[in-house]
Amino acid sequence: MEVSASISVSTTFRTPHPKDNFTLEGFDPRNPSRHVYSRYTQDIGTRVEKILSKINDGYALTYSSGLTAIFAALTHYQPKRIAIGKGYHGAHATISIYKSFKTADFQVIDIDDEFQKGDLCWLETPVNPTGESRDIQFYADKIHAVGGYLAVDSTFAPPPLQYPFKWGADMVMHSGTKYFGGHSDLLCGVIIVKTLDEWNSLFNARTYLGSMMGSLDAWLLLRSLRTLHLRVPRQSQTATKLAQWLYAVSLVPKGRKNEDGIPGGLIEIVWHSSLQARSAKWDIAKQMEGGWNATFAMQMKELPHARLLPHLLKYFVPATSLGGVESLIEQRSNSDAGADPRIVRISVGVEDFEDLKSDLTQALKRVAQESAKL
Amino acid sequence: MEVSASISVSTTFRTPHPKDNFTLEGFDPRNPSRHVYSRYTQDIGTRVEKILSKINDGYALTYSSGLTAIFAALTHYQPKRIAIGKGYHGAHATISIYKSFKTADFQVIDIDDEFQKGDLCWLETPVNPTGESRDIQFYADKIHAVGGYLAVDSTFAPPPLQYPFKWGADMVMHSGTKYFGGHSDLLCGVIIVKTLDEWNSLFNARTYLGSMMGSLDAWLLLRSLRTLHLRVPRQSQTATKLAQWLYAVSLVPKGRKNEDGIPGGLIEIVWHSSLQARSAKWDIAKQMEGGWNATFAMQMKELPHARLLPHLLKYFVPATSLGGVESLIEQRSNSDAGADPRIVRISVGVEDFEDLKSDLTQALKRVAQESAKL
Amino acid sequence: MEVSASISVSTTFRTPHPKDNFTLEGFDPRNPSRHVYSRYTQDIGTRVEKILSKINDGYALTYSSGLTAIFAALTHYQPKRIAIGKGYHGAHATISIYKSFKTADFQVIDIDDEFQKGDLCWLETPVNPTGESRDIQFYADKIHAVGGYLAVDSTFAPPPLQYPFKWGADMVMHSGTKYFGGHSDLLCGVIIVKTLDEWNSLFNARTYLGSMMGSLDAWLLLRSLRTLHLRVPRQSQTATKLAQWLYAVSLVPKGRKNEDGIPGGLIEIVWHSSLQARSAKWDIAKQMEGGWNATFAMQMKELPHARLLPHLLKYFVPATSLGGVESLIEQRSNSDAGADPRIVRISVGVEDFEDLKSDLTQALKRVAQESAKL
Amino acid sequence: MEVSASISVSTTFRTPHPKDNFTLEGFDPRNPSRHVYSRYTQDIGTRVEKILSKINDGYALTYSSGLTAIFAALTHYQPKRIAIGKGYHGAHATISIYKSFKTADFQVIDIDDEFQKGDLCWLETPVNPTGESRDIQFYADKIHAVGGYLAVDSTFAPPPLQYPFKWGADMVMHSGTKYFGGHSDLLCGVIIVKTLDEWNSLFNARTYLGSMMGSLDAWLLLRSLRTLHLRVPRQSQTATKLAQWLYAVSLVPKGRKNEDGIPGGLIEIVWHSSLQARSAKWDIAKQMEGGWNATFAMQMKELPHARLLPHLLKYFVPATSLGGVESLIEQRSNSDAGADPRIVRISVGVEDFEDLKSDLTQALKRVAQESAKL
Repeated sequence: MEVSASISVSTTFRTPHPKDNFTLEGFDPRNPSRHVYSRYTQDIGTRVEKILSKINDGYALTYSSGLTAIFAALTHYQPKRIAIGKGYHGAHATISIYKSFKTADFQVIDIDDEFQKGDLCWLETPVNPTGESRDIQFYADKIHAVGGYLAVDSTFAPPPLQYPFKWGADMVMHSGTKYFGGHSDLLCGVIIVKTLDEWNSLFNARTYLGSMMGSLDAWLLLRSLRTLHLRVPRQSQTATKLAQWLYAVSLVPKGRKNEDGIPGGLIEIVWHSSLQARSAKWDIAKQMEGGWNATFAMQMKELPHARLLPHLLKYFVPATSLGGVESLIEQRSNSDAGADPRIVRISVGVEDFEDLKSDLTQALKRVAQESAKL
Repeated sequence: MEVSASISVSTTFRTPHPKDNFTLEGFDPRNPSRHVYSRYTQDIGTRVEKILSKINDGYALTYSSGLTAIFAALTHYQPKRIAIGKGYHGAHATISIYKSFKTADFQVIDIDDEFQKGDLCWLETPVNPTGESRDIQFYADKIHAVGGYLAVDSTFAPPPLQYPFKWGADMVMHSGTKYFGGHSDLLCGVIIVKTLDEWNSLFNARTYLGSMMGSLDAWLLLRSLRTLHLRVPRQSQTATKLAQWLYAVSLVPKGRKNEDGIPGGLIEIVWHSSLQARSAKWDIAKQMEGGWNATFAMQMKELPHARLLPHLLKYFVPATSLGGVESLIEQRSNSDAGADPRIVRISVGVEDFEDLKSDLTQALKRVAQESAKL
Repeated sequence: MEVSASISVSTTFRTPHPKDNFTLEGFDPRNPSRHVYSRYTQDIGTRVEKILSKINDGYALTYSSGLTAIFAALTHYQPKRIAIGKGYHGAHATISIYKSFKTADFQVIDIDDEFQKGDLCWLETPVNPTGESRDIQFYADKIHAVGGYLAVDSTFAPPPLQYPFKWGADMVMHSGTKYFGGHSDLLCGVIIVKTLDEWNSLFNARTYLGSMMGSLDAWLLLRSLRTLHLRVPRQSQTATKLAQWLYAVSLVPKGRKNEDGIPGGLIEIVWHSSLQARSAKWDIAKQMEGGWNATFAMQMKELPHARLLPHLLKYFVPATSLGGVESLIEQRSNSDAGADPRIVRISVGVEDFEDLKSDLTQALKRVAQESAKL
Repeated sequence: MEVSASISVSTTFRTPHPKDNFTLEGFDPRNPSRHVYSRYTQDIGTRVEKILSKINDGYALTYSSGLTAIFAALTHYQPKRIAIGKGYHGAHATISIYKSFKTADFQVIDIDDEFQKGDLCWLETPVNPTGESRDIQFYADKIHAVGGYLAVDSTFAPPPLQYPFKWGADMVMHSGTKYFGGHSDLLCGVIIVKTLDEWNSLFNARTYLGSMMGSLDAWLLLRSLRTLHLRVPRQSQTATKLAQWLYAVSLVPKGRKNEDGIPGGLIEIVWHSSLQARSAKWDIAKQMEGGWNATFAMQMKELPHARLLPHLLKYFVPATSLGGVESLIEQRSNSDAGADPRIVRISVGVEDFEDLKSDLTQALKRVAQESAKL
């Protein structure tokens, strides 16, 4: 037997010879003794879901992308109302498509509005793009009090950082494209539920919506999961140091310079769960038990600085997305038209902290110089 | 520049340096000058859609599977009623999920019921599993008379066999997993529409449903399309000869044998567009301009024969699916619980006719022998 | 079991539990009951070699490239003298490396020189780049008369075109990169021998030279072999028609035009086995039993025409290599410094003859126009 | 531009239009402005060699396997004598093939024999399978004193563990299949030299021996290198702790048990550079500057124990090879017939130390139990 799994590509599988020539075995999609058609199951997909189930303490399914997973969640709960706060704009767009199917009484409300029985509370934490956290237990209690459901988009905090089931989530969702994939080379969505019944129900819907991961995407995900516990803690540690350092830079007043010569007055705000934790009334560190998030954002004082900064860096690539081994940076309004154009989102990779810090140092200095020319 | 395309896997792409440092270019998803995020576009996906657009005379989009493409069609038209006949059970299952979102007044009617304004007529031709054809022009006229839309599932008849737009279709759908892929190693759905506006609308919905093809699936599809014009005509010719030969076998009365020693009375019905054409009142050959379909079915007289036959063959693999280079055969009720268990579906590959005929000959003889033992 | 094979990538394989805890099974590299290390064997490699063995009527091994296969042949025979004619320059370069290991008495002679016992006759037919054939039986008899060996590079004529073992070859070699691969997306060399002993000896040497095919290359080769019998005959037929048409064009005298308006006097020579056969004293058609070769060459009257022509075509890509689904054309001296710079090599793909003919027609007219400007 | 590289598969590349229609650019294989044929260069191969060059402080080339790289080294130096000690048996087998080409005066000597001008000293350190180190500087001085060359097989100690050029190596070789690949899913050999001239010479020979890496192998290697600095230090740390713990276990006398209940008298010897360093007369830690090796061996007192132990483990896979994310263990005589059958080689992966230690603990106890039954 191979030590490293082969890449499954077959769409169809030989039917075993019927026993006594005339009877066929049943088919258990979660533990298939054989495969039938790859829109149902295939080897790598099954393996990957087993591992995702284990590390997320639940029953995991994979989808062709994070938004497909969100749509699957909506299909599963078929809520009449969804409570959702600001955050990843893609989730809102997917909800709009779901809404287009429904009659006029379907509603999207804010997570801080009053809940009703049957509501689905969709909680993203840490929030995209700022990387600040929301209190899962608080929203779990609030929604459960009325007989609703809590789904947590935990994309910014994969294991071992955060385990939403511990704090009351009914469903956990990830864009596996990000930290699970971790190399910016696969698309994937993940839903984790708490019971086999829910898994079977979701499996059935996925089968007929046809939203399977690609074959290579699934295999690369399997490969990536072998280094998840090396990548994520490293990214978390480096990002935390960077966020705190950038915060210190943001405190330098205009007209002064920090010890590396970066002029003050460039950065207006730095967001990160670790910074938020200093003043929060709930214990964020308890929720983020395995370390702080590795993606966060800052708001520049001047819009042109936010546009320019990503293009002055050597280690950081100016590009959307997050979670990969390479550090990325983007003026967030490039991807999310609703974002304040002064916001810059930073996804920290597995490079050395000092390299990234030096790179940001030189780029912030250049931003200031360019700015002076204007 | 590479002669054979590289396999695109990147999920994200470097943002070009803003011109004058401060402006960004727009993004045309059909002819992207650059890519942003692979859930939108990437190189191979774009190439594959260009080629599919050309050979299908329209504007093509790809999806993670055939059923995903069907769901995209439903999302696009958002019909209050769908007219659909018997055929591929998967389409009915996808419609059920769509129906679950809608209020009680949503209806599924038969394609031969009376149509109303706004109806979507979903026409599969040739029909799965029999491989008999339906008259596209007839249904196009009928649905257009009331102001509805005709979508044709042309999976069984890819180019160059049949071009549904010529006969009035408003949308063409394929399970690209089948003949376009052609090697049983990729999942894909295809929608082709007639205008760029429709393409843009479908593209937008796909982006937020996240139902992209996998990266390797897309690349293998591109590779497969290079031999489509070699594979499909060969499969069509061989299948037509086999269907006609099996039809002749079916005419041998019980108690007699054909020239190869196959006992009569084993096969009750053989279906194929070429056989249907002998008595049809419309010109099927005109609709199937490039050749007859390469997948068809037959009904055995006895249920055990249908169960046994697929397992007695050497060239044909007992497995579901169709369209690949290898011939497949299945007792259709294995995959479609609603099918008569005496029905056997045959997908003809690119092997030699004589090899396939000999293989069926020996297997039919063995079926008769096994049967005699019962 | 999967209908389409998975892509094997594992380098190492789980050792089975020793029977009685203390004994291990043997290992048969040609029919491995299990794999140990992928430098020895792995699933796809073994499958591909089985198929290549069958279609080439011998015992096949694969290598990382055609030249690696040539080097393996040299390592196998360890000849003191090699008889080789003009042809593919790469073979000569590989022989030079082999020669660098040997003492001064190693010699390279011409295939038409006198042979001695122990000589290895390396016969390429059809010859690169002209596509003319050499008489395998003649050289087989000549080398066997002195106790030497005949290896045939049959790259230009894969099955079903030519079977060198029928005419006395002791070993057949292919650059599998070409027609076996057939899509310009994999590197591969193939050696076929007549006995299992020779196979085992070559296998042993390959294991310790480490020159295995890549994992994806091997899988793509397996996929390609499914359409070999569709691709090669089509390429052969189209190429033969093109060669004969170009020959007719070459006969148009300067100052006249052919029926499509191509000026005479552009093409000096057209080579192709089908043209050679008109005057040859041996039966080339018998040797090329499955059709004429699909790659051939022509010599332009003027050097600049040879340089320009490849860049004026739409269907043909100006690039080296051959055997792929897409037609290629190159001024041969680009790749082989020893070639007459007026020679243009053409590899015919699976496109339609009329498209290729029209393309060459317009390009030859443009060549004439450009030439007139000089 | 893509953030994650596409998988290059094209064997051939469009020739650019000749400037002024009639001149072509040159071709620099190390910094190709374009590619011509993938046996020369292609995108991923070039990228991977750039990165390997950088992290190994030299000029790197890749090969289809580690043994191919060794053969390339021999082809490069064409030595009349090779000095080599005990160690990886594959290297000896490759040298045997090289030897088969040469006249009788070619000699293989021991690294501790006297050297002559022109000798190639082939030094493996740390040594397979024991994982003990040899003094690079010592052998560099010895061979340079007579005008020979030192090649170091540094497979067991990739960057950042050991940098052989610092201690006098003229050439460094790696089986990239191991730590560089790191996931047991690609075959690769690497040679690093100190000058561009040597690189060009090796490149030329590789081109005509055709021993390129496979296309997917190369791409997976590129992907793997992104986590090399996370994987190797982790593996090194865990292995060092395991080796020291096993050493302590080996000190428990027969009839006693260690604190975890493992009976004494099972393990005779544990080898590891960290253990060797306690008594060595040279500074091994200085040579292994980035940490100790992650593969090492131990000798069991009883042969049956060595055979049985690998099959009683849950985390460790009983399989040959090393360097991957998963821990492997093998009775070394399975792969190397010359090894003492009591030797067990252990390759430590990226799992947690405690999991591996517990696993070995339970397995050693079971070995003792099984042994008691005999």
